[in-house]
Amino acid sequence: MNNNPFRQEEIKIAVIGGGTGSFTLLSSLKDYTTQIAALVNMADDGGSTGQLRDELGVLPPGDVRQCLVALSHSPEIRELFNYRFDSGALKGHAFGNLFLTALEKMKGDFAEGINLASQILNVTGSVEPITLENITLAMEDAKGEVCKGEFQISDKDFATCRPKMWLEPKTAKANPRALGAIANADMIVIAPGNLYGSLAPALLVDGIGQALKNSKALKVYVSNLMTKPGQTDGFSVTDYANEIERIAGTEFLDVVLFNTERPTEKLIQKYAKEGERPVEYDEQLLIEQPYAAVGAKLISSEIWQPTSKADPIASSRTLIRHDSETVARALIDLYQTYQMQQDEDF
Amino acid sequence: MNNNPFRQEEIKIAVIGGGTGSFTLLSSLKDYTTQIAALVNMADDGGSTGQLRDELGVLPPGDVRQCLVALSHSPEIRELFNYRFDSGALKGHAFGNLFLTALEKMKGDFAEGINLASQILNVTGSVEPITLENITLAMEDAKGEVCKGEFQISDKDFATCRPKMWLEPKTAKANPRALGAIANADMIVIAPGNLYGSLAPALLVDGIGQALKNSKALKVYVSNLMTKPGQTDGFSVTDYANEIERIAGTEFLDVVLFNTERPTEKLIQKYAKEGERPVEYDEQLLIEQPYAAVGAKLISSEIWQPTSKADPIASSRTLIRHDSETVARALIDLYQTYQMQQDEDF
Repeated sequence: MNNNPFRQEEIKIAVIGGGTGSFTLLSSLKDYTTQIAALVNMADDGGSTGQLRDELGVLPPGDVRQCLVALSHSPEIRELFNYRFDSGALKGHAFGNLFLTALEKMKGDFAEGINLASQILNVTGSVEPITLENITLAMEDAKGEVCKGEFQISDKDFATCRPKMWLEPKTAKANPRALGAIANADMIVIAPGNLYGSLAPALLVDGIGQALKNSKALKVYVSNLMTKPGQTDGFSVTDYANEIERIAGTEFLDVVLFNTERPTEKLIQKYAKEGERPVEYDEQLLIEQPYAAVGAKLISSEIWQPTSKADPIASSRTLIRHDSETVARALIDLYQTYQMQQDEDF
Repeated sequence: MNNNPFRQEEIKIAVIGGGTGSFTLLSSLKDYTTQIAALVNMADDGGSTGQLRDELGVLPPGDVRQCLVALSHSPEIRELFNYRFDSGALKGHAFGNLFLTALEKMKGDFAEGINLASQILNVTGSVEPITLENITLAMEDAKGEVCKGEFQISDKDFATCRPKMWLEPKTAKANPRALGAIANADMIVIAPGNLYGSLAPALLVDGIGQALKNSKALKVYVSNLMTKPGQTDGFSVTDYANEIERIAGTEFLDVVLFNTERPTEKLIQKYAKEGERPVEYDEQLLIEQPYAAVGAKLISSEIWQPTSKADPIASSRTLIRHDSETVARALIDLYQTYQMQQDEDF
C-alpha cells in the first residue's frame, strides 16, 4: 500500500469490463482503496483462453488473469502471470491462465479458484466473474446475419449498425457476488474497452442492468479514446455512452469522463492507417444528455516500450492510451465532488 | 511454524535425494528448523518433467516441485502444485512443473526461478538443484550393456550386479549453493529412495562426494524399507549403505538409521507379488561397519487413502512407508545425542 494522501480507505469501487481498459483503471485505483472489485466479462473465447475452454471445459481465465495482475503489487507476479510459453504443447499459453485453470479444476469451482489465486498472489480487492455460467456472445447485424463467439465478433465488420446482441444461454444469471459488489459500491466505473466484444458481454448478463439501475453508487463511464473500424466508426463520446445504456437495457450513467487532449498528428496518422480515429466529443450534445459529462486530459504521455516484459498484454495493444494514474485521480476527484454535493443536498 | 518443544532453530539440515523419500523427510523436518536445504537430483527425465525438458529445454522440475511442496505449510499450495491436468494439450502435466518451467524461462535461470517460487509459496528453507547443468544418468551393467536416462534406468533389470554409473556430461559441476549447504550443515541426511535411479544421480555429481567427506556435519543415511526387484533384490541395510558410499566415491556415513519393525504379513504378501521384499538387517554385520547403526520402528501405521488428492505423488507409490514424523524425531534425537557426545569429548 502506498502513502497517497488522497487515498480513501472507505471508497468501495466496482470496475466493470475485462480487457486492457479494466487493467489500466485497476492498476492505479488499487492505490486509493482496498475495497475494489473487478467485475469481469466471461465471454472471451480466443487464443490461450479459448483453447483452455475447449479442451478442459473451464470458464475463460484470460481477463480474470489480467485483472489479478492489475491488482497485484509484485512486478514479478505480474511478469509471471503474463508469461507465455513459446514452444512445445504449452506454446501460446499464458502462465496465469494455466494457474487459474488448475485452481478451477482442483476446486471444482471457478470463483473459489479465483479467491485462492487472490490469496496466493496477495492482491488488493477482489476479482468477480460477471457470471459463473459458460456463456457465448451472439449478435445479429443489420442484414440479419448472426455471428457467435466473442473472438469472431471482435473482428467482425458490421458497418456501424447498432447490432442486436445477446448471450447464450439466455438464462445465464449474474454471479451473486458481482451483484453484491454493484449493490454495495460507492462508485461503479464502466471501463473503456472493446464495446461490442468486451463491454457488451458484461452488460448483457441477466440482472446486471437492473442492478446498475438500482445501485446508489456514482456510475461513471470512462469513454474510449479511439474508434474501432467496422464497428464504431465515427462514434462520439455520446454514441459510446448511449450504446452502453442500450446494451445494458437501462439508463444508468451519472457521469461520462472523456478525454479532451488530442494525440499528436503523427500518432493520429499512424492509427488512421488501421482505420482507428480519435473519439470526438460535441460539447453542446453532451450538455443535453441526462448524465453529466466531464472532460479532462487523460492520455498517457509516457514513451512506451513495446518490448517491456512486465505487462505485455496491456502494453501491446495501443500507443494512444489512458494514463492510468491520471484517470484514477480524476475518478477519485469526481467521487469526492459528488460526495460533497450529496452532503450539501442533504 | 509450530510450537514443537523439540524444535531447534539453529540446526542446519541438508537432505539429499529428490523423490518420495526426500518428500517424507522434509515434510516433518521443517517443523524442527527453518535452516533446511533440500538438495535435489537433476537427472529426472520421465513423464511431465521429461516432456518439459524435451520441448522447452528446461532443467527437470519434478523433484524440485515435490521438495517445494514438502516445505510448504499450505495444504492448498500442496494440492495445487501436485494437480495434474487431465485432458487436452496439458494432459499429464503437474501444475507445479509448469510453474517452475515458466519461472525458469522468465528468469533465464533455474535456480533464480526456484528462489522466486519459494518466495511466492512462502516455503520454509530452500531447495537447491544438486547441479545446474543439463545432465543424463548413464550406467553399464555386468554384461557391458550401457543404458542412459533416469527413466530407462529406473525400470531396468540388471540382475543385482553393482553397476558402473556416471553422469553425462562428465564435466557437470555441482551447484555451488548445494556445496555450500553441505559445507555449512550440522546434519546431512541421505533420504531413502530409488538407489540407482534417484540417489545415484545426486551422489555422482562431481564435487558432491568430496564435499560430503569434508563436511563436519553428522551424516546419516535413512535406509530404504523395501528392495527393488531386478536392482536391489536381497539387499540388506548394509548393502544399501555400502552402495551409497561406493557411488559417492567416498566413505562418509556416520550413522545409518534403519527400520526394525516388520510390516504386517498381509502387506508383505502384497509387495512380494511385485517382487519387493523388506530390507533385512544383520546386527552383527552392522556392528562391524565403520558407521554407527541405529534401529527404530519407523514404519507408518496410518491407514492410507490412495485417492487423497492432497499429495498424490507421495501417496501413490507405497503403502509400506516411513512415518514422516517418527523419522524426523529420530533424526533430531540422533543429532542431539551426537552433539552431547561432542560436548563431552571436547
